[in-house]
Amino acid sequence: MRNVTKDNITDIFKGYMAEDMNPRTRQLMSSLVQHLHDFARDTNLTHDEWRQGIAFLEGCADIESEDRHEFVLASDVLGLSSLVDMIHSRDDATSSSVLGPFHVSGAPALAVGGDMKRHFGGPVLLAEGVIRDTHGKPIPGAQIDIWQTAPNGLYASQDEAQDTFSFHGLMSVADDGYYAFTTVKPVEYTVPSDGPVGGILRACGRHPWRPSHLHYIVTAPGYQSLVTEIFPADDPYLDQDTVFGVREDLVMTYQHAQPQDFPKGMALSGKVHEPYLAVKFDVILSKD
Amino acid sequence: MRNVTKDNITDIFKGYMAEDMNPRTRQLMSSLVQHLHDFARDTNLTHDEWRQGIAFLEGCADIESEDRHEFVLASDVLGLSSLVDMIHSRDDATSSSVLGPFHVSGAPALAVGGDMKRHFGGPVLLAEGVIRDTHGKPIPGAQIDIWQTAPNGLYASQDEAQDTFSFHGLMSVADDGYYAFTTVKPVEYTVPSDGPVGGILRACGRHPWRPSHLHYIVTAPGYQSLVTEIFPADDPYLDQDTVFGVREDLVMTYQHAQPQDFPKGMALSGKVHEPYLAVKFDVILSKD
Repeated sequence: MRNVTKDNITDIFKGYMAEDMNPRTRQLMSSLVQHLHDFARDTNLTHDEWRQGIAFLEGCADIESEDRHEFVLASDVLGLSSLVDMIHSRDDATSSSVLGPFHVSGAPALAVGGDMKRHFGGPVLLAEGVIRDTHGKPIPGAQIDIWQTAPNGLYASQDEAQDTFSFHGLMSVADDGYYAFTTVKPVEYTVPSDGPVGGILRACGRHPWRPSHLHYIVTAPGYQSLVTEIFPADDPYLDQDTVFGVREDLVMTYQHAQPQDFPKGMALSGKVHEPYLAVKFDVILSKD
Repeated sequence: MRNVTKDNITDIFKGYMAEDMNPRTRQLMSSLVQHLHDFARDTNLTHDEWRQGIAFLEGCADIESEDRHEFVLASDVLGLSSLVDMIHSRDDATSSSVLGPFHVSGAPALAVGGDMKRHFGGPVLLAEGVIRDTHGKPIPGAQIDIWQTAPNGLYASQDEAQDTFSFHGLMSVADDGYYAFTTVKPVEYTVPSDGPVGGILRACGRHPWRPSHLHYIVTAPGYQSLVTEIFPADDPYLDQDTVFGVREDLVMTYQHAQPQDFPKGMALSGKVHEPYLAVKFDVILSKD
């Protein structure tokens, strides 16, 4: 079209797309550009604001690296990552939650009853539960990839003082679907806020905090893989998770327990002499 | 909110924003995230598709440099750059068009009647006109920053064989608002398509061509600066400009003229011995 106007440009964009292109790509590009154009029209977006948007993307590009995923973080704090999770979450399974940028593949095996706390200080947390199907039947072949921050609020990949797989473990559940491990009570922490995404948070008067959580990827042959998190019910940031990861069924009470009640057969059995915390969390997987 | 769902997450995002934040930033972020979330909900955006989107942004980041502005190019081929231009274009002035990434500041002075063609081959084009206000009155204090590609379709900044300011000139108009210069007839050219933006074009079955044009930035004290382009009416890509830059009032006929009709008082007067092309293009600026 030689007479492009602000009212017809969206249709012209759609008209440029070839008839024989992939139909799903057509649907995605049409919707994306319709919303992008509507955003500019709805707000009368100025040249200066457009330049700020480009500068934001270029600022993310400047710090993007193997260890710093600023575009993913932007998606997280804008709620897009959580929204995609929820769109594809099954109603009959445990809710999924954000993967985030801190998972590391290749975690060492952790036996049922094993310990991730090691020499780190802080309260012992005993986490246990059963991996079940949507009928409540245990799934013996399930695996749980577990990760969390150290007591300083940093993941191993952010912290040179930790081993590569500190607070990471890969557990094959028992024949009755049971899993259990000890660790240190996770702490709330901040997402990185020294980049362009931090600038957005500050411009919106928002904090960078996430509530404390254990992070699981649960897999089993024939079942849909699940990325999820377990949050303690008393966390101060539960209602304000900066990446929108909290779901009602993922909020669990950490029970206070006495050393004499600590179960037998665990790596730390006989070694716990202080009150500890315990959380039970069954995970439900739906079929592929 | 501890019970985040796909239906309430957009309102939760808006609720996270502080009451005392900048109201315009609130409006922009609310609209941006509403449209971003609606896009994901409307399309049932999958995790794989989300990952492709992140990979696109990271791919742009990988090649972003001082000479390669892939995010700007993305905005251009999605029509956002042109849309922002049109939203702020004045009805009573000449239409604005995309700036693009190839303008270089600091062009050398070009006298009225001067020549930019120099030793380059190809047909001579004589461009002339008057810079006027919205009442038709000439603006004697106007300046025109002119740039275009060489006959090989490359701008000076893309082409090591050209001088820095090859086909760039800064003209102060005459007291009667008149400007004139000779150059070579511009050619149609492609936007860079070897990066992620090229991938989008191919996925949509689109070509990377722009119609040929002269590019002007016209400024004058007390008037709104104007970025615009002049397109020849017979260009094959006029109806399919890949960056949506064509406006009805920017399409001009290049007249065929004989050497004996070439005007006096120009740098090339007496030196044109072949038929040449001529285009008249008045530019109207609106007050600040």
